[in-house]
Amino acid sequence: MTYNVQIRVMPLKELLDPQGKAVMGGLRNLGIQSVEDVRIGKHITLQIEAESEAAAKDIADAASKKLLANPVMEFYEIEMIN
Amino acid sequence: MTYNVQIRVMPLKELLDPQGKAVMGGLRNLGIQSVEDVRIGKHITLQIEAESEAAAKDIADAASKKLLANPVMEFYEIEMIN
Repeated sequence: MTYNVQIRVMPLKELLDPQGKAVMGGLRNLGIQSVEDVRIGKHITLQIEAESEAAAKDIADAASKKLLANPVMEFYEIEMIN
Repeated sequence: MTYNVQIRVMPLKELLDPQGKAVMGGLRNLGIQSVEDVRIGKHITLQIEAESEAAAKDIADAASKKLLANPVMEFYEIEMIN
């Protein structure tokens, strides 16, 4: 069966996020003042062929560990959809 | 009140996603064969000071339209958390 898996890869909370800071500055320049913090990461959707939802999640976890997320700077969260 | 808003910005479904294709190739090279499609976009969290949830969502929508998403190539989805 085919499973759709979403992975969110975000900069660790204790680290600065320069891209987010730059976007916050850009929003200020556009007149949007009420945004107090911006953090930017990656959103990845995988379509995985697997025998069960648990197996698909394991594959997504392996993909995140091996390639998608850099644990020194990022954390990831996996969400199964339908 | 402060609201946490999540925005997902993804490449339009009808467009190729070269970054996703490259990551799929990388996963194959690492021995992960069962991933059939990969799409990569941005995940953005905003912390917004607003009077109501609806007002916060409007600000996130304006930020997406003006800066975060390029409608020619991307679509976005907004989700309020807590």
